[in-house]
Amino acid sequence: MPNPASLPPLWLRDNCGCADCRDPRNGQKLFQITDLPEGLAVAAENPAAVDGAPGWEVRWTPDGHVSRYAESWLAADVQQSTGTGQGTGRGGDQRTEDAKTLWRAADLTAPGSLPTAAWADYRADPAVRLRTLDAVGRLGFALLTGVPADDGQVTRVAETFGYVRETNYGRIFEVRIEENPSNLAFTGERITPHTDNPYRDPVPTLQLLHCLVNSAEGGDSGLVDGFAAAALLREEDPAAFETLTRIPVPFRFADTSGGGAEVTAHRPLIGTDPRGRIREIRFNNRSIGTLRLPADDTRAFYTAYRAFARLLLRPELQLDFRLAPGDCLIFDNTRLLHARTAFASSGGRHLQGCYADLDGLFSTAAVLRRGVLDQLADLFAEQGSAEYFGEDVTQAQHMLQAGALAQAEGAPPALVAAAVLHDLGHFHGEVTGHDLMEGTDNRHSHTGADWLAQWFGPAVTEPVRLHVAAKRYLCAVEPGYFALLSPASVHTLAVQGGPMTPAEAEQFAAHPYGADAVRLRRWDEAAKDPQALTPGFAHFRPLLAELLAPGGTASLGVGAVA
Amino acid sequence: MPNPASLPPLWLRDNCGCADCRDPRNGQKLFQITDLPEGLAVAAENPAAVDGAPGWEVRWTPDGHVSRYAESWLAADVQQSTGTGQGTGRGGDQRTEDAKTLWRAADLTAPGSLPTAAWADYRADPAVRLRTLDAVGRLGFALLTGVPADDGQVTRVAETFGYVRETNYGRIFEVRIEENPSNLAFTGERITPHTDNPYRDPVPTLQLLHCLVNSAEGGDSGLVDGFAAAALLREEDPAAFETLTRIPVPFRFADTSGGGAEVTAHRPLIGTDPRGRIREIRFNNRSIGTLRLPADDTRAFYTAYRAFARLLLRPELQLDFRLAPGDCLIFDNTRLLHARTAFASSGGRHLQGCYADLDGLFSTAAVLRRGVLDQLADLFAEQGSAEYFGEDVTQAQHMLQAGALAQAEGAPPALVAAAVLHDLGHFHGEVTGHDLMEGTDNRHSHTGADWLAQWFGPAVTEPVRLHVAAKRYLCAVEPGYFALLSPASVHTLAVQGGPMTPAEAEQFAAHPYGADAVRLRRWDEAAKDPQALTPGFAHFRPLLAELLAPGGTASLGVGAVA
Repeated sequence: MPNPASLPPLWLRDNCGCADCRDPRNGQKLFQITDLPEGLAVAAENPAAVDGAPGWEVRWTPDGHVSRYAESWLAADVQQSTGTGQGTGRGGDQRTEDAKTLWRAADLTAPGSLPTAAWADYRADPAVRLRTLDAVGRLGFALLTGVPADDGQVTRVAETFGYVRETNYGRIFEVRIEENPSNLAFTGERITPHTDNPYRDPVPTLQLLHCLVNSAEGGDSGLVDGFAAAALLREEDPAAFETLTRIPVPFRFADTSGGGAEVTAHRPLIGTDPRGRIREIRFNNRSIGTLRLPADDTRAFYTAYRAFARLLLRPELQLDFRLAPGDCLIFDNTRLLHARTAFASSGGRHLQGCYADLDGLFSTAAVLRRGVLDQLADLFAEQGSAEYFGEDVTQAQHMLQAGALAQAEGAPPALVAAAVLHDLGHFHGEVTGHDLMEGTDNRHSHTGADWLAQWFGPAVTEPVRLHVAAKRYLCAVEPGYFALLSPASVHTLAVQGGPMTPAEAEQFAAHPYGADAVRLRRWDEAAKDPQALTPGFAHFRPLLAELLAPGGTASLGVGAVA
Repeated sequence: MPNPASLPPLWLRDNCGCADCRDPRNGQKLFQITDLPEGLAVAAENPAAVDGAPGWEVRWTPDGHVSRYAESWLAADVQQSTGTGQGTGRGGDQRTEDAKTLWRAADLTAPGSLPTAAWADYRADPAVRLRTLDAVGRLGFALLTGVPADDGQVTRVAETFGYVRETNYGRIFEVRIEENPSNLAFTGERITPHTDNPYRDPVPTLQLLHCLVNSAEGGDSGLVDGFAAAALLREEDPAAFETLTRIPVPFRFADTSGGGAEVTAHRPLIGTDPRGRIREIRFNNRSIGTLRLPADDTRAFYTAYRAFARLLLRPELQLDFRLAPGDCLIFDNTRLLHARTAFASSGGRHLQGCYADLDGLFSTAAVLRRGVLDQLADLFAEQGSAEYFGEDVTQAQHMLQAGALAQAEGAPPALVAAAVLHDLGHFHGEVTGHDLMEGTDNRHSHTGADWLAQWFGPAVTEPVRLHVAAKRYLCAVEPGYFALLSPASVHTLAVQGGPMTPAEAEQFAAHPYGADAVRLRRWDEAAKDPQALTPGFAHFRPLLAELLAPGGTASLGVGAVA
């Protein structure tokens, strides 16, 4: 665990969270980096509780300013700055390949693996909404079904998570056969995988396509994960990959009708971040303009361009499907390429599309996450203040102490979260809707785990689900464990079924989360100390936020575990 | 001049402009790069006229396709791909430092050097509109004055050239003192130079600030050219520059009120293109989040960050001014930093702002340019078809031949343009509004030059203005020149004042554009050959487009020359 004086002083001071340094209303910094004095250094550091958790108080020289830092915050620095997973967490850049689940068609063709949600569920249930938005971030797309096939509805879908990006095509564009098409999209011709509007800078980062009518022969859709394709190119033909990241390409589009447009952008086909990670794909055969480069670069580019174009046409990369009326596809236009087969002008095919941006979508997902954390914080503050069945701590203190014990032992974040949240099933109101623990019904571990499964993955929920069973297990297999139980715990053990039978214990030990549940159980027993330093719920918020809605390719309409 | 077979074949073929390769309606390519056959090569190349200009016809192997390329297009390739000015022309990336005029405050404080236009002129006159938009591209900003101080007017300004980018602040944001500010912008505090919304990705590339009320004490505005500052940092402290381009920085903003927002982006403070050219500045003390990097990188970043922050505060970089009610500032938010002094809550200061994007602005400028070229094309087609005062060619043929002669001699583009446009003053209608060349009034060189000065710089307009004087000069100083004149030219020489006096000739020879005018004059005399190959006006469009509205820092409300 690093002590403050060992860390870069300007960085440490720039992260001071006191009310003089940071506006409590909006979190913005109230000082300039140029305001910090020359020779800034830690004059004194002393252990101090920060929000009820272990931390440090620092006095700075030469200005005497005082800052406080939680030890877990300092530890996170070490973990995040040196680990191999640098920048992959939710605190990292959500736009690069590191934050994505790359896929090929076969990964998403198993039943239930397509990220799909019903419009009604998406609207009614914030958990479905969050999983849908997270799928767009992680897989690059999600499909909403049953969206009313109304004119203009596509912008109302966009407005559920962000803002429509208007372009020369309007707020909405109509994808159907036009008499004088300004763009080949508005014909019945086949269109190979491409990203839209590569000639725009900034390019629209999201696209929505809402199907109103699709009874034409042909007109099937396809999606290709451009990040997966670029990663494959990097593997198979590193020189081509390097060339495509290095050479900005002029893209052009001119519309001479009406008000007209003449849009150009110069960007590479494969955009990388300063660390070389894939971050943006632009690919559109139709609108590459005239490169003017030295001949060697031109040759290298065309060789690489054709190699990438061929790779993008490999059938195993393309997920094929057919949009039905009411389907609305939301996809990341900086990552996914979309395609369609040719279609006949008879029969009718009509999509409405609009553009939007990823930052709004990620913001909406973050606000949904914050909403869950706010709800949990309220539960801890209100229902958590109740006495804990005769113990000397409140329910909230008990859970927070369990979390602190897990953290002090260096448990992985998911298990710390499980410890903090393990007795959530005791709380009333929105969590369960039932009166729990009236002395008879004792399914609180399951009720809590089921509610948590809306938002958290099994590494959080399953230790919670098993923490009551773990007590029954320990009493069965560990001589003397029973003697450690508090009187309340002895009382509930009986209600919960008493110690396990040998067969039950064997089954429990084999459970993938059995060992975690046992660890959790030991913290549970210990977390009843009225004298212990107890962190506030706020202390655990960043950790919980990282774990919220971790994804997976499970169908979005149902919980990941339920 | 390169022949086609010497050029990269995939590149050459990808630029085939025939109707099978490119949709004549929208210019989009109709083939995929993967459709081109293996072993593509030029089977035969033969000189051929392309749109009336010298060019090549190419037959391809193995597929027998036939393409045609103008020699000037091939020559442009050599010029653009090998010259030092690579990518600086209008065909290059308009977003990098190469396409910008970097400035310090002193460059814009001379009378008339601020890019300003009156709203009424901007609306009425496409030339003022184009110069205003070009100033935003070139200098990073323009100021409109006299914009009605109406609520919501700022979005109507944005809609004259593009599309409003809606964000969590709304379509419009109010910059005034708010009771519960979600952002320090909505207080009366001093704000040092910064770019807006660095936590957004894509960041809004344009910002508009429209002043409704400014009677508070304080609240003056400042602008800093971030590209100039970054270039200065590169010069003074290359290591700091490199560090700031290399390290993505987490920017964060959270609004916990109402619907709320939680926006993050990870981008370097100085964004460069793959060639290392400065392309995007993000700088905002208030919203830099927590970097999690190995300690060496953290130290390097903070040292560089503070160096750049100090540099940005140098008074010589900051252009100070005060917005008056009705002023609307349009600026490039990826380049310019804006600042304001603190202001008192009494007295009142109220701006309305909105965001928009550069691609729309550049598109509108390109469409305005296209409008000018369309107007010229119409003049050539209609009025140009008139007989040329007894010569064996039409007026249009004469001008186009003069342009072809200039091009064949390798004249610089501006002089080619002057040759193509030199007799524009003869045309009626929109160009002059007068009957010219009725045998008495003979100011066509001035009328033409004055009209052209709306759109073109002096390197185009002044040779046009002087081309009649050049005849009088040549007849005075060059024995035998008079004998070369056609009968019509002899007739007009008399009306135009006859050969110059020695004093007049001396003055003419000293004129900075005298020599260009003499070259133009010789092409003028020669361009009367009914047998000569004559390019169409379309042949010169790309060349003219590059020269249209070349800028300079002249006040935008008046023509660059008039």
